Amino acid sequence: MKKNPEAWILTIGNEIINGVITDTNRETISRELRSVGITVKGMSSVGDDVSLIADALDSAMTRAAVTVVSGGLGPTEDDKTSAAVAGFLGVPLEMNQEQLSRIAERFRQWNRPMAASNEKQALFPAGSRPIPNDYGTAPGFMIERDGSIALFFPGVPRELVKMLREQGIPRILERFGATGHVFRNRTLHVYGLSESKLGEILSGLSEDEENYHLAFLPRFPIIRLRMDVKASSAEEAERLLDHKQGLVADRISENIISDDKRSMEQVVLGLLEARGLTLGLAESITGGMIGEMLTRVPGSSTTFMGSVVSYSNDMKQRLLGVSEETLRLYGAVSHQTAREMAVGAREAARADMGLSVTGIAGPDGGTPDKPVGTFYIGLATDDMTMSRGFLLPGTREWVRTLAAMQGLDLIRRHLLGLRIHGNGE
Amino acid sequence: MKKNPEAWILTIGNEIINGVITDTNRETISRELRSVGITVKGMSSVGDDVSLIADALDSAMTRAAVTVVSGGLGPTEDDKTSAAVAGFLGVPLEMNQEQLSRIAERFRQWNRPMAASNEKQALFPAGSRPIPNDYGTAPGFMIERDGSIALFFPGVPRELVKMLREQGIPRILERFGATGHVFRNRTLHVYGLSESKLGEILSGLSEDEENYHLAFLPRFPIIRLRMDVKASSAEEAERLLDHKQGLVADRISENIISDDKRSMEQVVLGLLEARGLTLGLAESITGGMIGEMLTRVPGSSTTFMGSVVSYSNDMKQRLLGVSEETLRLYGAVSHQTAREMAVGAREAARADMGLSVTGIAGPDGGTPDKPVGTFYIGLATDDMTMSRGFLLPGTREWVRTLAAMQGLDLIRRHLLGLRIHGNGE
Repeated sequence: MKKNPEAWILTIGNEIINGVITDTNRETISRELRSVGITVKGMSSVGDDVSLIADALDSAMTRAAVTVVSGGLGPTEDDKTSAAVAGFLGVPLEMNQEQLSRIAERFRQWNRPMAASNEKQALFPAGSRPIPNDYGTAPGFMIERDGSIALFFPGVPRELVKMLREQGIPRILERFGATGHVFRNRTLHVYGLSESKLGEILSGLSEDEENYHLAFLPRFPIIRLRMDVKASSAEEAERLLDHKQGLVADRISENIISDDKRSMEQVVLGLLEARGLTLGLAESITGGMIGEMLTRVPGSSTTFMGSVVSYSNDMKQRLLGVSEETLRLYGAVSHQTAREMAVGAREAARADMGLSVTGIAGPDGGTPDKPVGTFYIGLATDDMTMSRGFLLPGTREWVRTLAAMQGLDLIRRHLLGLRIHGNGE
Repeated sequence: MKKNPEAWILTIGNEIINGVITDTNRETISRELRSVGITVKGMSSVGDDVSLIADALDSAMTRAAVTVVSGGLGPTEDDKTSAAVAGFLGVPLEMNQEQLSRIAERFRQWNRPMAASNEKQALFPAGSRPIPNDYGTAPGFMIERDGSIALFFPGVPRELVKMLREQGIPRILERFGATGHVFRNRTLHVYGLSESKLGEILSGLSEDEENYHLAFLPRFPIIRLRMDVKASSAEEAERLLDHKQGLVADRISENIISDDKRSMEQVVLGLLEARGLTLGLAESITGGMIGEMLTRVPGSSTTFMGSVVSYSNDMKQRLLGVSEETLRLYGAVSHQTAREMAVGAREAARADMGLSVTGIAGPDGGTPDKPVGTFYIGLATDDMTMSRGFLLPGTREWVRTLAAMQGLDLIRRHLLGLRIHGNGE
């Protein structure tokens, strides 16, 4: 994608410098800038110290045409960014009455008294342009020096990202003449392929083009494929995104979970709900993880009835009706037990569909026959029962997470009529 | 704690600059440096670009006596740190035969062929001192310029932290004369107090002293209290840590979950196991989260028997024996239902103890009487049954996480004979 001016990111805060928090604002700002074709040249961070902030700002504005700064705009004594910028520019701080009224109005809306310290948040370096904050108390501002600009935002991630998107990026594009273009992006969630495998399959489709960039963003066990496009209108951008998504889908359609950032559990709940089906679970190896994932989603209670977490064999027998003979002949980790657990889950929850997972997460408990990473998934409906076996060795958390995801993916593939993975019996 | 020389942290990699990964090496390095009393003055990051790396290194070494660098030491063409440093110093890259043998030896141990590209990892800027890597293929190195030093490590977090601790920190201390001292730290996990409340209670104990520093590191819903001490011997350091821990414990002993980084679930499993008790759960609002937390711990199956995740009222009745009358008179979210669920959990799992959680996580489902954030916890043993009510409003994830933690904390407090929180009936 054709480049816009280069940018530098500066984050400010003692808690960043001291390693007390993970500073995710840097990534957020970088991704937002990249989505409109602005390349990030470098990043820096300093603590809440007037001279260090001024030095870092000087260093950044010397190196890049656009500097995006976050942090240090709060009401407390610790917050020194505005004072540092005023010193850097050699101008005084001035009270901005309009921004002061906005802050006061916000406190009225919240029914909370406004502290005197909040007034400080309406002080700006003389000559700067305020950036109103519709999501919190700290407004941002923008300065210019020797043809470079710097934009300052509060460090609260939620406020930062919205202010940057809605006000910061348009100001940058306005200033540097990339107007006349619109930038859009779309993210595909992909499951069931490793990053290297995915790279191989999509080879040729991830080349940078004048108006198109494709990024691989793994977030185990999902890989997000983010497509960024530049176009002369919103309609053209959407058409280009549709076209590019089509090319990707031609090669990996079954692995695309969603194109609107919905998670696996949201997609599965949506598919069940659309068909008016309810679900019950029997979890062993995952210990409750699948239920936890499903119930993260608000409103899941109309579809998800509940589960039996049968860590003991005794519970598998009594609550799920797995037969003693099955456990003796085939063991708790087997096709047979997975199927009986799925049938039992369906009955215990009085649900339309029963899903079960049983396996060996490790680090102990593996055998030559069934090593750590072995798990079986069972699925039962009113007219069929099936099971699938997997061997995906790794750490305990890795195995458990994959077992949960494979279980949900089995439901997804079953409901969509796609190929079913894993070993049959 | 008395300060050692100031440091700058520089991390290198396109994936950092592009916001594709969360760069946690910065925090790791900062914490390691701080643990020996070295203050971090600033941080910066640049992509894999020779001139940008040289510029960033110059900028860092001008500002701080110690620069710690991570990234860009891998075998691929993308990795340009060594070449950038050689250019920066105006010296050639030289092959180090000893380090080359070490890399070759590592591949022999792994039974893997060594690629020609790995030879590049034994090339160092002339005059630099190699830092051997016992955990991977990329050795680090150290340079000096105008009285400042810079240490370079690979970007792989696991390798970085060990090399920094075992070789980097000692070299820094050796160079800057803080030898003769040992540095130790200990972390207390605290639950049940907000950060501001904790700060109030511990006021006076968190002042910096010559040989002692106390840091608050919140990781919701736990706050970690990290104590760093400097002493002339390991024994003295441990004595000082014991003394400082004693002062903290005098004020918040009941809220200290562990002093060895064990999680709430590990502590609860340990207490149950020590008493030979087994546990069964009835989860409603948490949907499986408590079971998932417990089964993260290897070996939990001897103590945790299983649970019934009764999202539907029907399952509460059939599998847990909650009476229809109780549900009708008091509702699913009530003291009475929580107690009957706990008794039912104990019976369903045939366990010594039953724990239940029922509540309203939101965003919908709240009433004036029982708003979002209302939850009840029940506990049943062979000789008693109790319930406790809570109102902790917040987002769905926040409420669910606190409900799970309050449930586990109830077991902990019950087994240790501590005060029980929440409202009784």
